[in-house]
Amino acid sequence: MEVGFLGLGIMGKAMSMNLLRHGFKVTVWNRTLSKSHELVEHGASVAETPAEVVRKCKYTIAMLSDPSAALSVVFGKDGILEQICAGKSYVDMSTVDADTSSKINEAIKERGGYFLEAPVSGSKKPAEDGQLVILAAGEKALYEEVIPAFNVMGKKSFYLGQVGNGAKMKLVVNMIMGSMMNAFSEGLVLAGRSGLEPSVLLDVLDLGGIANPMFRLKGPTMIQGSHSPAFPLKHQQKDMRLALALGDETATSMPVAAAANEAFKKARSMGLGDLDFSAVYETVKTLEEPSRNSQLR
Amino acid sequence: MEVGFLGLGIMGKAMSMNLLRHGFKVTVWNRTLSKSHELVEHGASVAETPAEVVRKCKYTIAMLSDPSAALSVVFGKDGILEQICAGKSYVDMSTVDADTSSKINEAIKERGGYFLEAPVSGSKKPAEDGQLVILAAGEKALYEEVIPAFNVMGKKSFYLGQVGNGAKMKLVVNMIMGSMMNAFSEGLVLAGRSGLEPSVLLDVLDLGGIANPMFRLKGPTMIQGSHSPAFPLKHQQKDMRLALALGDETATSMPVAAAANEAFKKARSMGLGDLDFSAVYETVKTLEEPSRNSQLR
Amino acid sequence: MEVGFLGLGIMGKAMSMNLLRHGFKVTVWNRTLSKSHELVEHGASVAETPAEVVRKCKYTIAMLSDPSAALSVVFGKDGILEQICAGKSYVDMSTVDADTSSKINEAIKERGGYFLEAPVSGSKKPAEDGQLVILAAGEKALYEEVIPAFNVMGKKSFYLGQVGNGAKMKLVVNMIMGSMMNAFSEGLVLAGRSGLEPSVLLDVLDLGGIANPMFRLKGPTMIQGSHSPAFPLKHQQKDMRLALALGDETATSMPVAAAANEAFKKARSMGLGDLDFSAVYETVKTLEEPSRNSQLR
Amino acid sequence: MEVGFLGLGIMGKAMSMNLLRHGFKVTVWNRTLSKSHELVEHGASVAETPAEVVRKCKYTIAMLSDPSAALSVVFGKDGILEQICAGKSYVDMSTVDADTSSKINEAIKERGGYFLEAPVSGSKKPAEDGQLVILAAGEKALYEEVIPAFNVMGKKSFYLGQVGNGAKMKLVVNMIMGSMMNAFSEGLVLAGRSGLEPSVLLDVLDLGGIANPMFRLKGPTMIQGSHSPAFPLKHQQKDMRLALALGDETATSMPVAAAANEAFKKARSMGLGDLDFSAVYETVKTLEEPSRNSQLR
Repeated sequence: MEVGFLGLGIMGKAMSMNLLRHGFKVTVWNRTLSKSHELVEHGASVAETPAEVVRKCKYTIAMLSDPSAALSVVFGKDGILEQICAGKSYVDMSTVDADTSSKINEAIKERGGYFLEAPVSGSKKPAEDGQLVILAAGEKALYEEVIPAFNVMGKKSFYLGQVGNGAKMKLVVNMIMGSMMNAFSEGLVLAGRSGLEPSVLLDVLDLGGIANPMFRLKGPTMIQGSHSPAFPLKHQQKDMRLALALGDETATSMPVAAAANEAFKKARSMGLGDLDFSAVYETVKTLEEPSRNSQLR
Repeated sequence: MEVGFLGLGIMGKAMSMNLLRHGFKVTVWNRTLSKSHELVEHGASVAETPAEVVRKCKYTIAMLSDPSAALSVVFGKDGILEQICAGKSYVDMSTVDADTSSKINEAIKERGGYFLEAPVSGSKKPAEDGQLVILAAGEKALYEEVIPAFNVMGKKSFYLGQVGNGAKMKLVVNMIMGSMMNAFSEGLVLAGRSGLEPSVLLDVLDLGGIANPMFRLKGPTMIQGSHSPAFPLKHQQKDMRLALALGDETATSMPVAAAANEAFKKARSMGLGDLDFSAVYETVKTLEEPSRNSQLR
Repeated sequence: MEVGFLGLGIMGKAMSMNLLRHGFKVTVWNRTLSKSHELVEHGASVAETPAEVVRKCKYTIAMLSDPSAALSVVFGKDGILEQICAGKSYVDMSTVDADTSSKINEAIKERGGYFLEAPVSGSKKPAEDGQLVILAAGEKALYEEVIPAFNVMGKKSFYLGQVGNGAKMKLVVNMIMGSMMNAFSEGLVLAGRSGLEPSVLLDVLDLGGIANPMFRLKGPTMIQGSHSPAFPLKHQQKDMRLALALGDETATSMPVAAAANEAFKKARSMGLGDLDFSAVYETVKTLEEPSRNSQLR
Repeated sequence: MEVGFLGLGIMGKAMSMNLLRHGFKVTVWNRTLSKSHELVEHGASVAETPAEVVRKCKYTIAMLSDPSAALSVVFGKDGILEQICAGKSYVDMSTVDADTSSKINEAIKERGGYFLEAPVSGSKKPAEDGQLVILAAGEKALYEEVIPAFNVMGKKSFYLGQVGNGAKMKLVVNMIMGSMMNAFSEGLVLAGRSGLEPSVLLDVLDLGGIANPMFRLKGPTMIQGSHSPAFPLKHQQKDMRLALALGDETATSMPVAAAANEAFKKARSMGLGDLDFSAVYETVKTLEEPSRNSQLR
C-alpha cells in the first residue's frame, strides 16, 4: 500500500516511520526539508509540495501542528486542493477544531475526493510504539480502506460518524488530560511544601484508584524540573481553548477546565510554551523571588 | 492478635470484617449499636464505649467519619483517654486534618500510650477487598507491631514520619482525585452535548495515557445518573477544603483544586452531599429549567 | 447634520432618539421594521436596506447586536459595501471583536470610504440619557467630523488610535464589569445565607471604597430576583469570551475573568441568557431542589 | 469621655489620633511601645498591658491585626479578662472571624462585662479622615453609649444584631473588594498587552457604571508598580479565606472569590504579602523570565 505523509514533526515522523517499518511505501513532505532525511534513509520518497504528494499517492495522510497549518496545506499554493479528485483520499490526523475539519471536508468533497479526519490520542511514545488511539470521522468507506495504516500507527481506531466528531472527541480527551496535569502539579507542589516526599506521593498515587500511565511517566521527571517536550504546552493550551470554545457553543460550564486553561496561559506567559505540557508544574512551583520584590517596594 | 475497632460505617465495617476473616479477635464499638450485628455474626465482640474497647484491647483501631467524630471518641465521655496508658496503643485510620491528629497524639502520649495516624487511600470496594493503601505516621515501633493488621486491610502501607504526615498525604491524594472527578464530569457532559456518545468517550479514555480505575469504575454509572455513595461527596468536599487550607498555610496557589472545591460546594447546595462524590457530575449537567426561568422573567 | 442609523435594539433606539431630539435628521433601518415606528413618530425617515441608508446619508452609524450582525449589514446583500464610496463614512458603534472591525475597515477603505469603530460603555439608561462613553478608533478626521453626534449620544468620547483599539477597550471594560457582577452576586448570596440582610450590605457597600453606580442600580432589583434586561447576559458572556480570547492571544492569564465567564455560561445553560447580566446571581443562589435529588438517589 | 485603645498599627494609630483630636482622653497600649510616641505627643497616656488599660478605662477599644492577636490580648497574660467586670466594656474593631468574636464575647459576658464587635470598612486614608464605616454587633446598649466615639472614627455606623454579624458583614465586603481588585488587575494588564494605554483605561472606567473610589485611588500607582501598603495583601487574603470558609459553612459556591483567593495566595508565594493588596497585579503581570527558562530546558 502506497501512502503520502504530510508533516514530520515529533508525531508525524514517528507515525510515518512506523508505516515504513511495516512495509508501506511512503512519500513524505515537510515544510522544512531537512526533517525528511532520516525517513529517506528508511526508504521514504520525498515530494516538494503537498500537491505533488497527492498527485503521486491515492491516499495522503497529514499530521500537522495546528489548524492554520492544516488549512494551509489544503488551501495554500501547491496545496492538496490542486490535485485532489475523484479516487483520491485525504486523511487529516492533526488535532484541529471541528470548523477547520468541516472546511477541509467540504472543499475536498466538492472536488470529488474523499476525506477522513482522524486525530489521535497519545503523544511521542505511543506514536513511536504504534500505540496511538485513532478517532476517525467522515467517509465511512475510506475509514475501512485505511484500516491497515491505522493498525500500524495505532492500537485501536474508532469510527465516530460525521466530520468534526473526531476533532471533538480529541478535544474532550485532551481537556480532561490538561486538567489532570494541573491537579497533579498542584498535588506534587503541595506535597513538597507540606514536608512530604513528592516521590512517595507518586508511589501512593500509583497504588490507588487514580493510578494512570501519565502520572507514572511524567511524575519522576516533573519532580526534577525536566520537561522535555513530548506534547508541547502551547498545543495543550490550544486544545484547552478549543474545548472551552466547544463548551461555549453548547452552554457547558466547565470551571475546572477554565482554571486549568488559565494556568497553561500563565505558563506560556512565562515562556514555557515549547516545553512539555507538564511544565505547567513550574507555574505552581514559583516561589519568592527576592530581587524582583525588592524592586517593587 | 486482638484488636479493638471503633466506627462501623461503610469503611470501618469492611475493614473490621477483613480482620475477623483473617483470624483477628475483634472487639467493635459503634455509636449506633445496630451496625455491629453483622460483625457479631462473624465473631466480633461488642463494647459499649470506646473506653471499654481500650480497656480490653492492647491495640485499638478507629475509622471515623470526620475530625469532630475523631476528637469525640478520644476526648469525650467514655472516650479513649479514660483508659489509654503505657502499653496501650491507638491507631486512627480516619481521614482528619493534621491539627486533629496532633491533638490526639499529644493527649495519648501524655498518658503514656502510643499513637499512629493511618488514613487510607481507597473507598468501599478496596476496603472490602483488603486492597487499601495505608498512610501511617507517628510511633515507628507501633507501626511495625500493627503491620499484620495493615496487611489484612490493605495491599500496601507507608510509614511517613511524624504525626500529621499521614493526614497530609491523604489530603493531597484526595485533592488530586477530586479535581480529576470534576475534569471527568466536565468531559462527559461536554461530550454528550457535542453529539458524541459518552460511553465511547469512556472507551477512548480507557485506551489512553490517562486511563485509570476511577474513570473505569464510575464512568458507566455516572452516565446513568446513578451516584450511590462509595465515598460521600460531602467528605470529598471536606478533604478538598482541608487540602486548600494546607495550601493556604504553605502559600501554595492551587486554582484548579479551588475551582473543583467550589463545584463540590455547589453540589452540596443542591442537596447532593450524601451521594457519591461522582454526583458533582450533576452540577455540570444542569440544564434549562423552564418553569423556574419563567418565574424569573 | 444628516445621519443614517442601522439597528434599533434597546441601545440603538435610545441613541437614534437622542440624535432626533437634538435636531439631527435621521434615516433609520432595522431588520424588523416595526421597531422603527416610534422613531418615525419623532421625525425619522425609514430606509429599506443598509445600502439605501448609505446612499442617502454621508454618515451612517450602526448599533448592532453582535459580530455576525455587524458583518452581515456590511457584506450581505443590500449591505453597506454596495453604496459606500469616497466621501461616505461608516461609524460602527456595536461591540464586536477587533478582527470583525478590521475586516469591515479594510473593505470600506478599499472602496474609498471612511471608517470609525466606536463601541460604547454604558447600557440602556446611559443610552437614553445621552451619557454613554464612546471609544472611537480608526480614521482620525472622521472622528472629528462626527463629534457633534457623539456629543449628543455620549458624555465623553475617546480617540484610541488604530481600528481594533475601540473594540479592545470595550472588551476590557466589560470583562472587569462582568467579574464585578459575579463578585457582587456571590457577596449578596453569602450575606443572605449568613444571616445578614442583603439590603444592609448594599448600604454598607455604598459608603465604602468600592461604591459604584452598578451596585447601586442593580442591587435592589437583584435581591428581588428581577433581572429585566438592560444588558442581556448572553451579550455580557460574549464579551467575556472575546476578552478571554484577547488574553489568549497576548498570553495574559486571567483566572478571575475565566471563573466569571463559566458562571455566565452556567446562567446561559439555565436559560437565563436573555435576562439582564445580573441574572448570574441566580446561578449562585440555586439551592436544594428536593424533587430532582430524590430522582437521583 | 475616656477610652482605652489597644493596637497602634496603620489603622489603630489613625483611629486613636482622631479620638484625641476630638477631645477624647485616650490611654493607649501597643505590643511595640515605640509606636505610641506620636500619640503621646498628642496627649495620649500609655499603659503597659491590656489589663491595665481596662482597669483604667470604662471603655476599651481594640484594633488588632488578626484573630490570634485579638484572642491574645483578651485571653493572654495581662489580658483583658484579668480586669473586665460589670460596668466595663470592650469594643473590638479588628477584622476577625465570627468564631473568634464569639469566644471573646462569651468570656467577657461571663465576667459581667459588655462586648461589641465593630470591624470597619475602609483602610488607611478613611481611618485618618474619620471616614470609616463601622459594622457593630453585640450589646445594643453599649452600641448606643459608644456612638460618640464611632462618630469621630467613622462616617457611618451600623448595628447588625448578634455578635458575629459584624465580622461576617466585613468579610463579605472585603471578599467583593478582593475579587474586584483581581478583575481590575487583569483588566489593566490585558489593556497594556493589547496595545492600549492603561491610563486611558482608568479614564474610561471612571466615567462608566463601575467607576469607584478604589479604582480611582489605586489605579495610577498600580500602573507604576508601586504598592505601598494601605491594606496589606496578606490580610486581604486572610479575609478572602475566612469569607470562603463562611461560604463553606453555608454551602455557598463562590467560584470567582475562590479564583481571586488563589491569586492572592500566588502573590504571597511571590513574597508580596506585606505590600498593598493591589500587588496582586504583579501576579497577573509576570512575563517571560528568560534566564529561568533556559535552566529548565
